[in-house]
Amino acid sequence: MAIVLGPNRYGKAETRLVRVVRDGDTHALADLNVSVSLAGDLTATHVTGDNSAVLPTDTMKNTVYAFAREHGVGEPEAFGLLLARHFVKTVGHVDTATVTIESYGWRRLGPHSFQRTGDLTRTATVTVHPGGVQVVSGISDLVLLNTTASEFHGFIKDRYTTLAETSDRILATAVNARWRHLGDEADWADSFDGVRDALVSAFVNTYSHSLQQTLLSMGTVVLSQRPEVAEVRLALPNKHHYLVDLAPFGLDNPGQVFQAGDRPYGLIEGTVSRDDAPPATADWYL
Amino acid sequence: MAIVLGPNRYGKAETRLVRVVRDGDTHALADLNVSVSLAGDLTATHVTGDNSAVLPTDTMKNTVYAFAREHGVGEPEAFGLLLARHFVKTVGHVDTATVTIESYGWRRLGPHSFQRTGDLTRTATVTVHPGGVQVVSGISDLVLLNTTASEFHGFIKDRYTTLAETSDRILATAVNARWRHLGDEADWADSFDGVRDALVSAFVNTYSHSLQQTLLSMGTVVLSQRPEVAEVRLALPNKHHYLVDLAPFGLDNPGQVFQAGDRPYGLIEGTVSRDDAPPATADWYL
Amino acid sequence: MAIVLGPNRYGKAETRLVRVVRDGDTHALADLNVSVSLAGDLTATHVTGDNSAVLPTDTMKNTVYAFAREHGVGEPEAFGLLLARHFVKTVGHVDTATVTIESYGWRRLGPHSFQRTGDLTRTATVTVHPGGVQVVSGISDLVLLNTTASEFHGFIKDRYTTLAETSDRILATAVNARWRHLGDEADWADSFDGVRDALVSAFVNTYSHSLQQTLLSMGTVVLSQRPEVAEVRLALPNKHHYLVDLAPFGLDNPGQVFQAGDRPYGLIEGTVSRDDAPPATADWYL
Amino acid sequence: MAIVLGPNRYGKAETRLVRVVRDGDTHALADLNVSVSLAGDLTATHVTGDNSAVLPTDTMKNTVYAFAREHGVGEPEAFGLLLARHFVKTVGHVDTATVTIESYGWRRLGPHSFQRTGDLTRTATVTVHPGGVQVVSGISDLVLLNTTASEFHGFIKDRYTTLAETSDRILATAVNARWRHLGDEADWADSFDGVRDALVSAFVNTYSHSLQQTLLSMGTVVLSQRPEVAEVRLALPNKHHYLVDLAPFGLDNPGQVFQAGDRPYGLIEGTVSRDDAPPATADWYL
Repeated sequence: MAIVLGPNRYGKAETRLVRVVRDGDTHALADLNVSVSLAGDLTATHVTGDNSAVLPTDTMKNTVYAFAREHGVGEPEAFGLLLARHFVKTVGHVDTATVTIESYGWRRLGPHSFQRTGDLTRTATVTVHPGGVQVVSGISDLVLLNTTASEFHGFIKDRYTTLAETSDRILATAVNARWRHLGDEADWADSFDGVRDALVSAFVNTYSHSLQQTLLSMGTVVLSQRPEVAEVRLALPNKHHYLVDLAPFGLDNPGQVFQAGDRPYGLIEGTVSRDDAPPATADWYL
Repeated sequence: MAIVLGPNRYGKAETRLVRVVRDGDTHALADLNVSVSLAGDLTATHVTGDNSAVLPTDTMKNTVYAFAREHGVGEPEAFGLLLARHFVKTVGHVDTATVTIESYGWRRLGPHSFQRTGDLTRTATVTVHPGGVQVVSGISDLVLLNTTASEFHGFIKDRYTTLAETSDRILATAVNARWRHLGDEADWADSFDGVRDALVSAFVNTYSHSLQQTLLSMGTVVLSQRPEVAEVRLALPNKHHYLVDLAPFGLDNPGQVFQAGDRPYGLIEGTVSRDDAPPATADWYL
Repeated sequence: MAIVLGPNRYGKAETRLVRVVRDGDTHALADLNVSVSLAGDLTATHVTGDNSAVLPTDTMKNTVYAFAREHGVGEPEAFGLLLARHFVKTVGHVDTATVTIESYGWRRLGPHSFQRTGDLTRTATVTVHPGGVQVVSGISDLVLLNTTASEFHGFIKDRYTTLAETSDRILATAVNARWRHLGDEADWADSFDGVRDALVSAFVNTYSHSLQQTLLSMGTVVLSQRPEVAEVRLALPNKHHYLVDLAPFGLDNPGQVFQAGDRPYGLIEGTVSRDDAPPATADWYL
Repeated sequence: MAIVLGPNRYGKAETRLVRVVRDGDTHALADLNVSVSLAGDLTATHVTGDNSAVLPTDTMKNTVYAFAREHGVGEPEAFGLLLARHFVKTVGHVDTATVTIESYGWRRLGPHSFQRTGDLTRTATVTVHPGGVQVVSGISDLVLLNTTASEFHGFIKDRYTTLAETSDRILATAVNARWRHLGDEADWADSFDGVRDALVSAFVNTYSHSLQQTLLSMGTVVLSQRPEVAEVRLALPNKHHYLVDLAPFGLDNPGQVFQAGDRPYGLIEGTVSRDDAPPATADWYL
């Protein structure tokens, strides 16, 4: 038996970049959080501390800022592709580069004035690896709620079950979605808007008997409407809203007063795919 | 010298209430975080553990839920007044009740479907005390940014000063505002919208030589436009955006690429008042 | 009626300072988060953007770092005094300086190795103002729990009360304590240790009929044992632990299995004073 | 092409359990955050909302509490095994159960009094799947720092590199470690203590030329000392401490005054294995 170095990578996480584009008096804004990670043959630095194959993570940060000036930022998927390809191409010993970007939204208030929107975070993860390129787009922090059109019954009852069946409950979740693109070229802005709208629309329009059913519906609508998407992964916390028992106070409560719970919460995770989707990198499952 | 019990209060913090109003198939939603605090002669419970003058904080929580069913929620200022008056009126030994409410926004997606907006949190703090009633409304988490029209120069230089003067910088802040009403009756929704719009408009339209100047402008516009408001308190973090030095890479950077900083941050706090504003409770300054 | 500028101040918040002291091969560590706030006649910058009386907050940050090199850090109260006096003395128009410090603990692992402890945060707030100097020390994030020796009964029952009386419950809180010193000279380290031990000991040894009783006990023990302290303010969240009803599963639960709740929580706030304590600055009550 | 349901699972996250053991007047405490996740053939609930194969997540929560009463809690690995085996055995259609536990530490202050320690969080993830059982233990939130004995030089310099080489820097990280056990029986408490001590000792005693070198050393010491461990995964953020340039103030700074940075941070991830380690479940890589 020997002790060996297994899979490893390194990088710079959370470089905060704000890019202003000045078109005369009208300015535009991109607000990103960029993380870079590189992998390849990094044995030497692990074993002996020989850093001759190590690009300092500080240089990764500098590269993010310099590229924002030289090439502009554009859509996060495109900026991620530019950076990831640069690192694989120019850094010896590196065969895989992953660039993960969070993009924060701002609403225009005037030619040079903006208000941060907080209704969702757009994400992109680009992986350039020996077998090709993978582009994953995503959404987090998108909180949706239906006050009705949600039932939950017919489930297993065992010794530890006390939950009552219901034909009318609040269904709420914070959408955490990622979707793999079939290729590495697309109208990323249009694609993002389309997927977001499909997810929201499916949540709104699915009469739900379980959050799993809603999840499959959301993924299916995305794949039906967006031919550029190979696969969708969803993690949907079931943000429980407990109907408050007001009977002790002589009051009924027909679906009106709820306690919003923090913990615990349900967590429904699932993948919806095309059956001919090409294989994903391991990153996809992380 | 004796050791004595000084000012004290107790209550239930962060009761999470979601109230659904069902008008046929069209539902409406209120999403609140309600905190209650009571003060009065509570010596006995402190000294001997005699709780005969103590209303359990659990009862305060129940009251929030029951009142939401019995009276509806409406605007947070009105719901706060209802609750605070109830506690002072019905709980012996209590002479002061403070109800603080955070209200979260949701955008309608359909008759019973909603998306949480994240662009600001609306707050209300109602205090019913022996001298009367005080209603404070507020905003937090409203992030505004101007990409230009902000200068900063002419400041003190001492031995420890290295900051360069600038005639063009990003100015960004997360608005934390509270404003005292002159009375306890108003069209709370209209008032809130008006103050919010005044704050935003003043931030957008002030050509700024310091964040203090912007602060005074924001408060002044509110008081000019909203006769129901006595005083405005603002805490404005200066969310620094550092121009990245790209010269080492042979690149200029004319106000285009910035690092968004986390810590440290400037913090500008100030009050703007009518000179004939009535006195505030101590709560106002907390 | 005129619109006027009221109380205001400005400063730099959360300058993160780590100071290493090298005594040969043995190193020591101070890890602080320093916030500075200045007040005085700052009308010009608010009204016209004339910054001639404004010390940039960036300079405050620089001063924190330079003073750490020139004077060392020592105890947080002493470092705060040094900084606050410097600003009042050297910055024209400033009559009040407040320095607030969080100090994080590290446990020694070796001559130059340390592990961060997370059992509490030590705080200090020093105010130098026209009437003198005020030193406030504090603790936050100190979580204490008694599994028994806590009762709660004899309280008010009204229409909205459902809480059962109990003669045996878990009592848990996250201690948030601040105490004013009578003077501005003390053995700060010894004083802090003494107050912390008094607070903990009082929590442990008080048989509690209410968290208010425990609060008064904690403040009283501090003032009894520490003559240098004028007044103690405590904010004690009642971190509820709910006994889980296991009867549906045919199990009893004699004080054994609890759900730790997040929200809502009780919040007990109180002050314990010497009756001859000198008056405090307004800062004390914030 | 068809749209198909891919990998999926569901469960209850973050059930907060506090278990008191009463041995006469001396009590003991376990404080856990338990998450359960089940996988198997769940097609029906996704496709039609037929929940006949769904165990409500509420029941999972109840089971956690009931098992704590019936069987006690003991070490988190053992409690996780008990729960995971129960779900696979008793819930039809479920072939895989994952139980993830965070365990929070408390220091004894008296027979029934405790103070929460905050120096680390202990974790355990147990997976019972068709191929067997996997037990993973872990640590998070363990922050370590060396004030010296850390160099970084000899790295790649490209157009975007500005970082200076150094032969003396602060090295600090928040250890995030997970290790797979070879079997499903061990003295879990002893094993945890041993691994923790090995990780800390390796960090303290490694003269570091890169954080990667420290990472490999940490993993190697664990595997050398703990025969029950098959593999260690480490994610080590490089918590940068920037030496402050005090030259503008006429001061030198020989490794004494540092700014602790928040973002960006380096992130070093790696695995250290026995070359004959059995294969892991996919969960291991998540």
